[in-house]
Amino acid sequence: MSSVAGRLLALRAELQRLGLQGFIVPRADEYLGEYVPPSAERLAWLTGFTGSAGLAVVLPDRAAVFTDGRYVLQLAAQTDPTLWEGHHITDEPPPGWLAAHAPAGAAIGYDPRLIGEEALARYAEAGLAMRPVDDNPIDAIWTDRPAAPCTPAVPHRLEHAGRSAADKRAEIASLLQAGKQDAAAITDPASVAWLLNIRGGDLPYAPFPLGYALIEADGRTELFMDPAKLGAETRAWLGNQVAVAEPAALAPALARFAGKRVRVDPAGSPAWFAQTLRRSGAVVVAGPDPCLLPKACKNPVEQQGARDAHLRDAAAVCRFLHWLAFAGPAGSETEMSAAAHLRALRAEMPGFRGESFPAISGTGEHGAIIHYRVTPESNRPIRPNEAYLIDSGAQYLDGTTDITRTIWTGRSRPPQALREQATRVLKGHIAIATLVFPQGTSGVQLDGFARRALWQAGLDYDHGTSHGVGSYLSVHEGPVTLSRHARPVPLAAGMILSNEPGYYLPGQYGIRLENLLLVQPAELPEAAKPFLRFDTLTLAPFDRRLIDPRLLDPTEIAWLDAYHARVAEQVGPALPTDACDWLEAVTAPLPLSAGEGRRVQRGG
Amino acid sequence: MSSVAGRLLALRAELQRLGLQGFIVPRADEYLGEYVPPSAERLAWLTGFTGSAGLAVVLPDRAAVFTDGRYVLQLAAQTDPTLWEGHHITDEPPPGWLAAHAPAGAAIGYDPRLIGEEALARYAEAGLAMRPVDDNPIDAIWTDRPAAPCTPAVPHRLEHAGRSAADKRAEIASLLQAGKQDAAAITDPASVAWLLNIRGGDLPYAPFPLGYALIEADGRTELFMDPAKLGAETRAWLGNQVAVAEPAALAPALARFAGKRVRVDPAGSPAWFAQTLRRSGAVVVAGPDPCLLPKACKNPVEQQGARDAHLRDAAAVCRFLHWLAFAGPAGSETEMSAAAHLRALRAEMPGFRGESFPAISGTGEHGAIIHYRVTPESNRPIRPNEAYLIDSGAQYLDGTTDITRTIWTGRSRPPQALREQATRVLKGHIAIATLVFPQGTSGVQLDGFARRALWQAGLDYDHGTSHGVGSYLSVHEGPVTLSRHARPVPLAAGMILSNEPGYYLPGQYGIRLENLLLVQPAELPEAAKPFLRFDTLTLAPFDRRLIDPRLLDPTEIAWLDAYHARVAEQVGPALPTDACDWLEAVTAPLPLSAGEGRRVQRGG
Repeated sequence: MSSVAGRLLALRAELQRLGLQGFIVPRADEYLGEYVPPSAERLAWLTGFTGSAGLAVVLPDRAAVFTDGRYVLQLAAQTDPTLWEGHHITDEPPPGWLAAHAPAGAAIGYDPRLIGEEALARYAEAGLAMRPVDDNPIDAIWTDRPAAPCTPAVPHRLEHAGRSAADKRAEIASLLQAGKQDAAAITDPASVAWLLNIRGGDLPYAPFPLGYALIEADGRTELFMDPAKLGAETRAWLGNQVAVAEPAALAPALARFAGKRVRVDPAGSPAWFAQTLRRSGAVVVAGPDPCLLPKACKNPVEQQGARDAHLRDAAAVCRFLHWLAFAGPAGSETEMSAAAHLRALRAEMPGFRGESFPAISGTGEHGAIIHYRVTPESNRPIRPNEAYLIDSGAQYLDGTTDITRTIWTGRSRPPQALREQATRVLKGHIAIATLVFPQGTSGVQLDGFARRALWQAGLDYDHGTSHGVGSYLSVHEGPVTLSRHARPVPLAAGMILSNEPGYYLPGQYGIRLENLLLVQPAELPEAAKPFLRFDTLTLAPFDRRLIDPRLLDPTEIAWLDAYHARVAEQVGPALPTDACDWLEAVTAPLPLSAGEGRRVQRGG
Repeated sequence: MSSVAGRLLALRAELQRLGLQGFIVPRADEYLGEYVPPSAERLAWLTGFTGSAGLAVVLPDRAAVFTDGRYVLQLAAQTDPTLWEGHHITDEPPPGWLAAHAPAGAAIGYDPRLIGEEALARYAEAGLAMRPVDDNPIDAIWTDRPAAPCTPAVPHRLEHAGRSAADKRAEIASLLQAGKQDAAAITDPASVAWLLNIRGGDLPYAPFPLGYALIEADGRTELFMDPAKLGAETRAWLGNQVAVAEPAALAPALARFAGKRVRVDPAGSPAWFAQTLRRSGAVVVAGPDPCLLPKACKNPVEQQGARDAHLRDAAAVCRFLHWLAFAGPAGSETEMSAAAHLRALRAEMPGFRGESFPAISGTGEHGAIIHYRVTPESNRPIRPNEAYLIDSGAQYLDGTTDITRTIWTGRSRPPQALREQATRVLKGHIAIATLVFPQGTSGVQLDGFARRALWQAGLDYDHGTSHGVGSYLSVHEGPVTLSRHARPVPLAAGMILSNEPGYYLPGQYGIRLENLLLVQPAELPEAAKPFLRFDTLTLAPFDRRLIDPRLLDPTEIAWLDAYHARVAEQVGPALPTDACDWLEAVTAPLPLSAGEGRRVQRGG
């Protein structure tokens, strides 16, 4: 059964056998994470769509794939429109689509391991009769399914973790005690890795092993993970307060909590956990994964690690930008060769463990594809005089990086429209970087500051402004984002967040300017309550040829000049002489002359 | 049983009789609205606390009242601390408090008519065993409970409503058809009044009659309301497509929907509706009250009505401010007499139907009490040289108004700290008034713009920035607010919203500057999608003595001068000569001289 048409037919036959009139196929695996191993790529296998966010719905007579703004073009390119309708997942949510198209009272199946209770509730609220399946019907027809990954889990040492696992378990235990909870299910492998100070390699880019944990209010912890991943050294590192069990032991372990109060994350945990616990007679307490906040708020060792990692990463990035300053006008490189060169420069840095995500290396019209991933087929030369967007990052033992720059590749003057748009993106970037805000503020309240300068010109971008970043963990880490859909989770000191407004002109070019930020206490002696501010971690120049200083106000110019001075001072010494000289030149204060200088800005 | 201690004892005895270990007492009545008739003031009767938002929780050995930042001081003043703990409802939500303090597995009672399903879910998520009661145990012990209000419902004529009720019912019916819903429960009396073009007077300030409606997908509508409110003229106005029934007929009417899909608002409707429908075999579809959005987006007749009502209201307010310019320095008036004078000036205006809420007339330290309500006991003279805050509004047949001004009452120069704070509040007000934003933007994304100038100085305010306003309906109207807790409902053209940042220094003074805004399409020819902007409806000067122009940037000064010029031009002709001359003077462009003029601003 190889064609996608045949797969859809086979699934419909399987659903009929199960007495189901419909079925939902999320992109997620049983960890509900961003990356999915080949063994769990059910959505891609069924539909052909390989984007990192999406969901398919299958009914007897029609089927649809839903994804977000990043992947609308990719969805259209990868799926057969005679089989699959394509929809924007927020403009037309799947529950409403199902309620409108499924026969009244139809039984709609779902795999409770692949969806959270909160997402599931949206289907019930739409009046749909949702039916969990014990075994995923796709697995029954996916005959050549790859094996699950099995990569060694390794210790994450104190010099980088900053806190012992025993100390972390004690903190989580006291959180559970305070909430009168007897235990919590830790279903996010990044949380498990944080909690137990381990790392791994089951997935690309995300350096943790796949597994679940249960932690009790006295701190006792059980790790459910393929024992083949856990060698003697790692078992010794985990210590005898952490029991290790086969994944198959999980359901019996949950049954032990009959009559107890167990915390489960209704957003981040598969619904299977709450359903299994309730069936076992446990009281399910809905609450966020207790590791989320402590993991997001980096401790002082992790904060210093982030600064160190960013300084090393900056040396690689600045060497790359210097190289690009010659390669661009020469037209001698491609999207793939440039990304490979950047990766090679990073690989020279101490502690480098790999990229933190597949670099987005898109020139000209490819830059407008927000999550463009260059392939041998799409690869094209970087030509002189176009906008080249490179969004990339690295995993180092002491921290995770993520940076985007948009570079004008030629010696001609960029078109004024492009300069104006890029300057508005920069204004949004600076508005975020300079914010001061009270503790308790959440990301959805701040997102608009990154957009106002664009909005004033009728422009916008269809993605969030910011995501959390882990400490040698996921480059996309919860619980805080800056976006219109952000959950109301307050920002807190120690969090690392991206700052990445953009603008995209389909078919022509894309602009995105991204630094990472570290949330810090703001020192405001007059304040009646605590305030927070951002420290910018990322150190690399913005392309001044894309900045129109006439659109910047004096405080924005001052911020940019100070930032560039800091880049030159901190990164320059780590560069070869020619790159250092180049960096000195491109980080000079904004020009005063030629009719675009400060005089215009300052109204003199 | 008259003392609050006795009432609490009696309630505990009643709970024991019912086999309940706890009980929650929301402030709401069975319409979940802002105002509650005396017959439903259960929270006030039980605890003594009369704020407009709150909830009490009673356990065998302890009891607590929760309220929001507006009422923290009032809660402490009105409740007996030996009986009632006081808590901030967002900082320490009742479900968490209950989970921490109730015995494990305790049965916690609630009246399903007084709480929505969404609020109820928070208790279940905390692992609490919630038990609905058929009859409210407070009603059993409240022996001298007043009768429910019964005021005539009257027609709201087309010249003000702008659309026939038949047209509105057809729109709602088509919304239900599109959602594959057979019917919807309309449980918000303001929605019922909008849908059927009726108004009433069961509650103070809110000009609608209390009642529910059911509307089916073919447009047939049943109104559940005490028939004594419906005279012959109103019955004729409702027409024969609207059946009228006793409130007691509601449960049997819901039972008719067995097997049908009925839309119920999980936030705005009492949980009793969904529970009763499910018991009857209906499929409950969770969805917002279908009238909310059409009601919030005022039609052209309502928009013109709002402009007309605001112009008349402005004449009354400007006469009041002129009067205050002399009464303030003379020290001849009190908080009560000033509010009464403003009411009297408004009552002279055509179409005046009453105040839209109890005026907040607070001078000096009373201004810092965000929802201060002057009483004969608290009333005090308005003394020269203090900050006087007056937040007031009116109901006119063609529109609802709501305005706050903060006035310096003397001839001395205000303290610089006060001027700086007031100017930062004004900067926030202007930031909102001048926003341009894409369709799809929700209030929580915009709230921060009103706060940034305050945040930069370590200041903030503990209330939302904006609420929706009805058209001769509730002055607080959903579904859109600008606040950190706002639901993600997009703003849309035709909505009327307040713009009211503030700053409060407890024990000293309060500052709030409020205008109403009308959401309008923005004309941005270059934009790739629709954008929106605000028109300011309210017309009254801001006290320039409280503005430090050195803190304003040139675009802010230009906005203020243009706004003041518009106030003088549009309101001046409606004023007596002396008030008109005064208005001309206080709306002049900001001063250029004396070291605080534009020269400093413009950097020349």
